[in-house]
Amino acid sequence: MGYAEKIWASIEAIRTARPFVLSVTNNVVTNLTANVLLALGASPAMTHAAPDAAELAGLAGAVVLNMGTPQQAYVESMLAAGRAANAAGVPVIFDPVAAGASAYRAQVALELLAAVDMAVVRGNASEILFLAGGVSNARGVDARDEAAAAVDGARRLAEKLSCVVCVSGAVDYVTGGASVLAVAGGVAMMTRVTGLGCAATALTGAFAAVSGDMLEASAFAMAAMGVAGEIAFEGSPGPGTFAVRFLDALYGLDLAGIEGRLRLSVQ
Amino acid sequence: MGYAEKIWASIEAIRTARPFVLSVTNNVVTNLTANVLLALGASPAMTHAAPDAAELAGLAGAVVLNMGTPQQAYVESMLAAGRAANAAGVPVIFDPVAAGASAYRAQVALELLAAVDMAVVRGNASEILFLAGGVSNARGVDARDEAAAAVDGARRLAEKLSCVVCVSGAVDYVTGGASVLAVAGGVAMMTRVTGLGCAATALTGAFAAVSGDMLEASAFAMAAMGVAGEIAFEGSPGPGTFAVRFLDALYGLDLAGIEGRLRLSVQ
Amino acid sequence: MGYAEKIWASIEAIRTARPFVLSVTNNVVTNLTANVLLALGASPAMTHAAPDAAELAGLAGAVVLNMGTPQQAYVESMLAAGRAANAAGVPVIFDPVAAGASAYRAQVALELLAAVDMAVVRGNASEILFLAGGVSNARGVDARDEAAAAVDGARRLAEKLSCVVCVSGAVDYVTGGASVLAVAGGVAMMTRVTGLGCAATALTGAFAAVSGDMLEASAFAMAAMGVAGEIAFEGSPGPGTFAVRFLDALYGLDLAGIEGRLRLSVQ
Repeated sequence: MGYAEKIWASIEAIRTARPFVLSVTNNVVTNLTANVLLALGASPAMTHAAPDAAELAGLAGAVVLNMGTPQQAYVESMLAAGRAANAAGVPVIFDPVAAGASAYRAQVALELLAAVDMAVVRGNASEILFLAGGVSNARGVDARDEAAAAVDGARRLAEKLSCVVCVSGAVDYVTGGASVLAVAGGVAMMTRVTGLGCAATALTGAFAAVSGDMLEASAFAMAAMGVAGEIAFEGSPGPGTFAVRFLDALYGLDLAGIEGRLRLSVQ
Repeated sequence: MGYAEKIWASIEAIRTARPFVLSVTNNVVTNLTANVLLALGASPAMTHAAPDAAELAGLAGAVVLNMGTPQQAYVESMLAAGRAANAAGVPVIFDPVAAGASAYRAQVALELLAAVDMAVVRGNASEILFLAGGVSNARGVDARDEAAAAVDGARRLAEKLSCVVCVSGAVDYVTGGASVLAVAGGVAMMTRVTGLGCAATALTGAFAAVSGDMLEASAFAMAAMGVAGEIAFEGSPGPGTFAVRFLDALYGLDLAGIEGRLRLSVQ
Repeated sequence: MGYAEKIWASIEAIRTARPFVLSVTNNVVTNLTANVLLALGASPAMTHAAPDAAELAGLAGAVVLNMGTPQQAYVESMLAAGRAANAAGVPVIFDPVAAGASAYRAQVALELLAAVDMAVVRGNASEILFLAGGVSNARGVDARDEAAAAVDGARRLAEKLSCVVCVSGAVDYVTGGASVLAVAGGVAMMTRVTGLGCAATALTGAFAAVSGDMLEASAFAMAAMGVAGEIAFEGSPGPGTFAVRFLDALYGLDLAGIEGRLRLSVQ
């Protein structure tokens, strides 16, 4: 079975099983996060109360932690959900939004990584490089080296945390430390809609809930994002229409659409 | 005057009076809740600060309490708004989102029901059955019995709380304990957009603000949701477009559209 | 260079420089606020954690404070961001949402105005008149006097705070106390989408970040809102479609579109 068929099988599994994905996420993207999960076929729930998070996490197919607006109640809820998920063997997907942008965020990210075993960490190059500890090397790289630096950082972070790391960009790279899956595709318009990075993390949770292979779950989520983004972009005059059609495209994904657009390769 | 005419008269009253509906709601649906109220013609306001909630509730035509993301500040604001609304004779509409999903949520729901006299409680079958105390009976019912179980639970809860209870599903049932109004209609796509249940609760607040009859206000809100949902569904390729058209349809509701689609009956 | 050319030059500067605009805003409009900033070309960030707000504010091109849902963590974050912005010379744009609607909100607004030097305050007539201290005079004005009362209130508030004040309505008036810029245009449908007032405040931040002239930055943001609103309104059946097309229109703004629709005058 090729990758397109495997992605399609995972989407069919999500649509059938409707896995419960619990998100403790930032208050900019709650609505879009729930809607992308519903569009793909999963069952989303959200909370920002620590005791509620701890209870619900154990019942979930996957738990998504996103530190985009890290006020105290949210951090406590992420910790509670993450620990409960670990105890119950539920995979935890972490989005370290702007982890290196402030000392406060850096501390939140490190506290979460110290307390919770992540199954997947998904971020952009600067977030992943910050967590990998390669910040000084990353600054000043020219465009040709950016992808190489990102892959290197993802590998280092994956080894450090013993988890899968996905670094997203024009090409997304997913690695558990050894082999690397590269997912090309998507459109630049995706950067003009807030929360589509967070949506990729949430979809990783949906794929993780129906798969035992976190490397593939991460790559398949990025592939679904890219394919839906390309479909949505056709004829969209701007980011408003694009965001609407993106949900329609996720909802309407089929095997032919994936086969026609997928650019996933092992590096 | 038939039900279609009465619903239309209520909508005209909302468009003219623009009643102020105060919501203390969860942070996934704030935006959609405000937009459905604006689309129908009401004036929404939101708060999550207890002293603010207490002051604004007394000025409102209706107060909507929704425990979807029940962090502490939200619970305190729901309590403050509910008590102030009770003191001022303003109807309170309660949405017990996922009340039975965790012990924490169960406690929040019971605390709110103990402290605040609700005019209407609107939820899905599992939420209403949980609050009615019929959980064990409800589990394991087959599909034929589900509607009957929901109606029975709604009746029990309505008698317990001395209020109107609306249990929503493929058919919505509204009861004050004795007679039952059944509202059929709507489309399954409504379950693929986050917050449309919460939107139904918010619209119940708008109808309650222009009506003294909570039974009719609840049923009319569900009818408006269903009619707008059916109109929005025509030609929508997925949940993104559907959600956009749903707001357009609420905004454009007219008597002919309601007459042509309404399926409201007394049971 | 006429005003249309100046507005266009500012938009080109925003698209090129992609200024970082930090918002501490209410939890109804976070998503729309980020999306309007992205559609215009700016780089948004949001936070509700005081230490994070303090750090990020100093790095921003502009800081936007919006008290729409003023819970305690949000108020502390607004104070922290505002003070840090003042210390770093970053312009602060303030939206006193419903400042006069409750004693609690009045206190929050006054606390913010006492602690932070605002570059621009943008609100509707009732908000500006409340802050200007002319509430009693404002009540009972008939429609003919409303604009005059609003301009007078804006002037008084601008002098009191030594800042630019923008009072928005069917015509927007922007003043630093002496001369007044009037921006006509826009459509009534803008009042049927929650958060477009807050969006105007956020775009003021984007224009302020590329301009040293706060009077022009405020007026240009209102002009961009109005032009985009008129473009979006064409053929929109309701507020759902309108909101989507509004983002498309902001994204697609060009000099010809501005020249053809701009109604900005010095009074």
